[in-house]
Amino acid sequence: MNKNNFCIIMAGGIGSRFWPMSRTAHPKQFIDILGTGRTLIQQAFDRFNGTCPHDQIYIVTNEMYRELVKEQLPLINEEQIVCEPARRNTAPCIAYATYKIIAKNPNANIVVAPSDHIILKEADFCNIIQSALDCCTENDWLITLGITPSRPDTGYGYIQYTDCDNCNDSRTKKVKTFTEKPNIELAKSFISSGDFLWNSGIFIWSAKSILKAFENHLPDVFQIFNEGLGKYNTPDEAEFIKDTYTICKNISIDFGVLEKADNVYVYVSDFGWSDLGTWGSLYENSKLNANNNAVIGQNVLTYETKGSIINVPKNKLVVIQGLENYIVVESDGILLICQKDEEQQIRQFVNDVMLKKGDKYI
Amino acid sequence: MNKNNFCIIMAGGIGSRFWPMSRTAHPKQFIDILGTGRTLIQQAFDRFNGTCPHDQIYIVTNEMYRELVKEQLPLINEEQIVCEPARRNTAPCIAYATYKIIAKNPNANIVVAPSDHIILKEADFCNIIQSALDCCTENDWLITLGITPSRPDTGYGYIQYTDCDNCNDSRTKKVKTFTEKPNIELAKSFISSGDFLWNSGIFIWSAKSILKAFENHLPDVFQIFNEGLGKYNTPDEAEFIKDTYTICKNISIDFGVLEKADNVYVYVSDFGWSDLGTWGSLYENSKLNANNNAVIGQNVLTYETKGSIINVPKNKLVVIQGLENYIVVESDGILLICQKDEEQQIRQFVNDVMLKKGDKYI
Repeated sequence: MNKNNFCIIMAGGIGSRFWPMSRTAHPKQFIDILGTGRTLIQQAFDRFNGTCPHDQIYIVTNEMYRELVKEQLPLINEEQIVCEPARRNTAPCIAYATYKIIAKNPNANIVVAPSDHIILKEADFCNIIQSALDCCTENDWLITLGITPSRPDTGYGYIQYTDCDNCNDSRTKKVKTFTEKPNIELAKSFISSGDFLWNSGIFIWSAKSILKAFENHLPDVFQIFNEGLGKYNTPDEAEFIKDTYTICKNISIDFGVLEKADNVYVYVSDFGWSDLGTWGSLYENSKLNANNNAVIGQNVLTYETKGSIINVPKNKLVVIQGLENYIVVESDGILLICQKDEEQQIRQFVNDVMLKKGDKYI
Repeated sequence: MNKNNFCIIMAGGIGSRFWPMSRTAHPKQFIDILGTGRTLIQQAFDRFNGTCPHDQIYIVTNEMYRELVKEQLPLINEEQIVCEPARRNTAPCIAYATYKIIAKNPNANIVVAPSDHIILKEADFCNIIQSALDCCTENDWLITLGITPSRPDTGYGYIQYTDCDNCNDSRTKKVKTFTEKPNIELAKSFISSGDFLWNSGIFIWSAKSILKAFENHLPDVFQIFNEGLGKYNTPDEAEFIKDTYTICKNISIDFGVLEKADNVYVYVSDFGWSDLGTWGSLYENSKLNANNNAVIGQNVLTYETKGSIINVPKNKLVVIQGLENYIVVESDGILLICQKDEEQQIRQFVNDVMLKKGDKYI
């Protein structure tokens, strides 16, 4: 294992699309949403634990989730839990964690990954990560992992690539453009063009390369974090970060840095990835029973019920008749029944619940 | 209030059609199923409390429910709770309670009524009961209350009547036949013929008349209970009844006595009656909101949901989207979702639950 390998796992999201399973106080990444026995963040940690020394895996999250992280990842030390004072999207979060890492090891290579995705082919994934980390040691490249798309999904961002003259690996391509979530026509044209990939949000680069890119493309963000040099990993850090975050703008790494940089490369990948952004994607990634239901819960009886997601507490007795393509979730005493095709309404439900019943339910 | 007025409330049923709200350990009659603040048996008691002295209202039930009765009806004394050692349908239950009553008052007039029906027009009902009780004082009649049918319901028994020459009240008719639950064609022909009523299962007679009818039409049942004379309301009763029930046959009062007797009269009634035998009938008798949903529960949010019964614990947050004509019930930690039109399957569900998960859930 290369002692320069570091990892940043981003775990600050609140996952409202998975309400009521995912709650503000206990969001998606801290849930064993697939019923595998490990929560999503535990799976993310396990995945990188072979590539990076476990004391070099950083979890960036909100103060509210510190105890959950400690509880679920006992191998993580207190100093590896990086708490943001406010939610400012991915660019500030990555800048902050990178400064902490470079203060420890100026030669650090870093994988940045979300905490709430699933990856089915773990060995393939680890090989790609290792290869990308090696590549970053030698090149001033910003690498992103692009997933060969299997359908014109409108829930993902896309990366357009071109062939790469100076790459010695056929999986490596030069990034031409990043595209936000497209409408369905555009998504279909992306698929048929053959040179678009899904943007996985997983990045690999050296600490030096990404800070240089910040300096070039997001100089204001670079500047305010750079002023903390000498304070990272010291007792002065917390106070400094508190002020810094207050003035820092809210911007994503894709929009703030990667879309502007000309040294961005993409690894064409296929490791059974899903961002698990919706109940629909959870359904696609779940083991289905004979009636095409994805059932989590040990006391569930179904009749004339198909294509549904049923996710209820282990010992709860649930009898369901006559539902097709529904989501039935009970979590923490809250019950949601919703058509699978209408799950985009869940955000509205959560909003209504907050307005009508108070934020204790969200 | 006539001191000869007595009442027998039958409360031994287990109400499996209302599972999971109605459970073997806590059946329908002990539930505030309409959300009015009083359980069905409490409503039944309240209804007769004005007509009969409260210490002359007997509750016939199973030993298992003794504590529930005491808890829900604090005005009832221990000796008014008549516990059957086994379930033997209505004829033995009525014979037993009648012998207890006649041992106290040979001139008793008795109303027999189920504990789990609803009656919306309570004043009309009380007038009819009073009038029928008065009538029984003067006549050796067995009176049943027949409900003017509003639809060809296949869930009810029917009573065919003919005009009554010796009746001085136009509401009183002579019973011609009792009919079990008909099929839909038959039910329609009953309605169009105009001389059929729904059988409410509410009876009024003198203790003497009903015992005479037992003697004539169910002599074996009469005989075994008659042997207990001198033991009713004494310490010897329990032992005697235990043996008696063991050998007593299982038979209904309708089939065993009323269909055979020639002194059966029916009061044509209309007091907003339902036997609440099904979720459908509960729905018909519930207050509906703007979307025609019958909702019990204070934290229920619905979207694109119509014609449904939602009955959940008071404080449980439930969000439902996209259900039409469903039953959603959560009770005692058990959740049932079922199409309203398919509720006849509930008995099967309960059976399956018992076989697959054990009887703790039924």
